[in-house]
Amino acid sequence: MDTRFFLGLGLAIVLVFSGAVIYSNFTKLPAASAVPEDRETLYQVSTIDALMQGVFDGILPISELKKHGDFGIGTFDALEGEMIVLDGKVYHAKADGRVYSVMDNATTPLATVTYFTSDFSETTGQPMNFSVFSTEMSAHLPSPNMIYALRMHGTFPHMTVRAIPAQQKPYPTLTDAAKNQSVYSYTNTTGTVVGFYLPVFFKGLNVGGYHLHFLSDDGNTGGHILDLEIPANTTAEYDITPEFEMHLPTSGAFMGVDLSQDLSQELARVES
Amino acid sequence: MDTRFFLGLGLAIVLVFSGAVIYSNFTKLPAASAVPEDRETLYQVSTIDALMQGVFDGILPISELKKHGDFGIGTFDALEGEMIVLDGKVYHAKADGRVYSVMDNATTPLATVTYFTSDFSETTGQPMNFSVFSTEMSAHLPSPNMIYALRMHGTFPHMTVRAIPAQQKPYPTLTDAAKNQSVYSYTNTTGTVVGFYLPVFFKGLNVGGYHLHFLSDDGNTGGHILDLEIPANTTAEYDITPEFEMHLPTSGAFMGVDLSQDLSQELARVES
Repeated sequence: MDTRFFLGLGLAIVLVFSGAVIYSNFTKLPAASAVPEDRETLYQVSTIDALMQGVFDGILPISELKKHGDFGIGTFDALEGEMIVLDGKVYHAKADGRVYSVMDNATTPLATVTYFTSDFSETTGQPMNFSVFSTEMSAHLPSPNMIYALRMHGTFPHMTVRAIPAQQKPYPTLTDAAKNQSVYSYTNTTGTVVGFYLPVFFKGLNVGGYHLHFLSDDGNTGGHILDLEIPANTTAEYDITPEFEMHLPTSGAFMGVDLSQDLSQELARVES
Repeated sequence: MDTRFFLGLGLAIVLVFSGAVIYSNFTKLPAASAVPEDRETLYQVSTIDALMQGVFDGILPISELKKHGDFGIGTFDALEGEMIVLDGKVYHAKADGRVYSVMDNATTPLATVTYFTSDFSETTGQPMNFSVFSTEMSAHLPSPNMIYALRMHGTFPHMTVRAIPAQQKPYPTLTDAAKNQSVYSYTNTTGTVVGFYLPVFFKGLNVGGYHLHFLSDDGNTGGHILDLEIPANTTAEYDITPEFEMHLPTSGAFMGVDLSQDLSQELARVES
C-alpha cells in the first residue's frame, strides 16, 4: 500500500466525514448567494511562462489591477520584488527585506487577483510545513479541478520568504533572475498568508497547486513563501473561484517570446 | 536548410513586408477603438481535457452562452454533434449530416464564443488544404501567443466534416466516442468556416492551433472540419481577442475527473 493509496483513502474519509459540510457551502455558490459573479473571478495579467522567459516589463497599471480584486499576488515591473494584495491594499516586498506601499501608476508584468469572500475553512490539527500543508489541504478540497483563493492568518514559528531584485535589460529568464534572490527567515512572525490553489491544468498560464505570499501584520516584512511552519489550530479560509479571466499583453516582448515549451519542471524549481 | 528555416525566413519576410499593415491594425486595438472590452473576450465553458475524459453533461444553457458572444464553436449535451455560432444564431450539426436550429434551453458541456469584429484579413494566394493553411496562416499572425477568432467565407472544392452522435451513460472518453463519428465530404460547397486559433499554451484548456467548424450558406450541412481545400483568393477575417474568460463547472462530473494528465497527443488524434 503506497502513498497514493493513503492519499486516496484520506480523500475518501474526508469526503465521507467532512465532505457534506464543505460541499454544502460549495453547492450553494452558484445559487442566489450575495456574491456577484465578477467577485468570483480570478483575474490574471499575462502568463507564468512569459515571466519564465523574461517578459518582465510592466504592462498593467496597479490602478487597473485593483479594479479586478482586493486580494492576490504578483510581481512588479522589471520583476522587482513580490506583490501582496490584501484588503484592497497593494504591498511591495522588495529584495532589501522591507515592504513598501505602491503607487497607482506602478505596473505589473504578472499578477493574479480576486475579491476574497470565504466559502469554507480548514483548520490544522497539528503543525506542518509547506509540503505537508500542500498535500493535506489538497486532499481536503472539494475538487482538485477548481480555483481557490487562500487566506490564512497566524503566528508562524518559521517563515522563509524570498524577493527578487529589479532586473536590467536585456532581461534574463526567471530562473537566472532568481539566482540573485534575497531570502529572509523569520521566527514567530504574525501575519497573513495570501495566495491561490490552481488546478494542474493551468500549467503554462499560472502556478499549479499552492502559490503563497506572506505579509506580516506590522506591514514590515513579506515576500514569496519558500517554506513555513504552520502551527496547530491555524485556520485557512478558502474562496471558491469558478471564473477565470486572463488578459494577454497586446504589445511588447510577450508577442515574440517562445511560449511553446513545457517549462513546468523549471517553474517548480524556481517557485519553491 | 530545413523547413523551419523557410518558416523562419517566411515569417521574417512577412514581418518586413506586410507586418506594418497587420500590426497597425493590431496596435490600435487597445486604444480608443469602438470595440468594448467584453467584445474582445474569448469566453469558454469547461475545458477540453474534461471533454476528453467524458464530462459530456451540458452545464450551460445556450441562452447564457449567447450572452458572451455571437460567434463560436462547441458541442451539446451528451456530446451530441457540433455547434456553430454565426451572426448570433446557434446551429446544431448532428451525426445524421443535417443541421438543426437550437432551443435556448439546450445546454453545452464545452463551447467557445466571442463577439466577432474583423481586425485584419489574409487572402490565400494559391489553393491549400487544412495542413498547409494552418502552417502558412500561423506564420502570418502578428503573434503566435495571441487568441484569434477566424471567419472565412468561400466555395470550397472539398470539405470533410464530422459529427459525433449523442453518447449514453456511463459516458466513454472523447477518443472512444469519436470512433462512432459520422464523416461527410462535400464538393464545391459554399459556406462559412467558423473557429479559432489558440496559442499552444492553452493546452489542457482548449485546442491549440486552429480549431474550425463549417456551416453551409443554405444552412443544411456542417460540422467539425477534418479537412478542406481552400481555393486561391479566399479571405480569412481575423478578430484579435486578447481577453480570455473561462467558466469552470461547479458541480457534476467535472469535479471528480482526473485532469492531471497531458492528453494533448490524444487530443490531436481525435480533433484531426
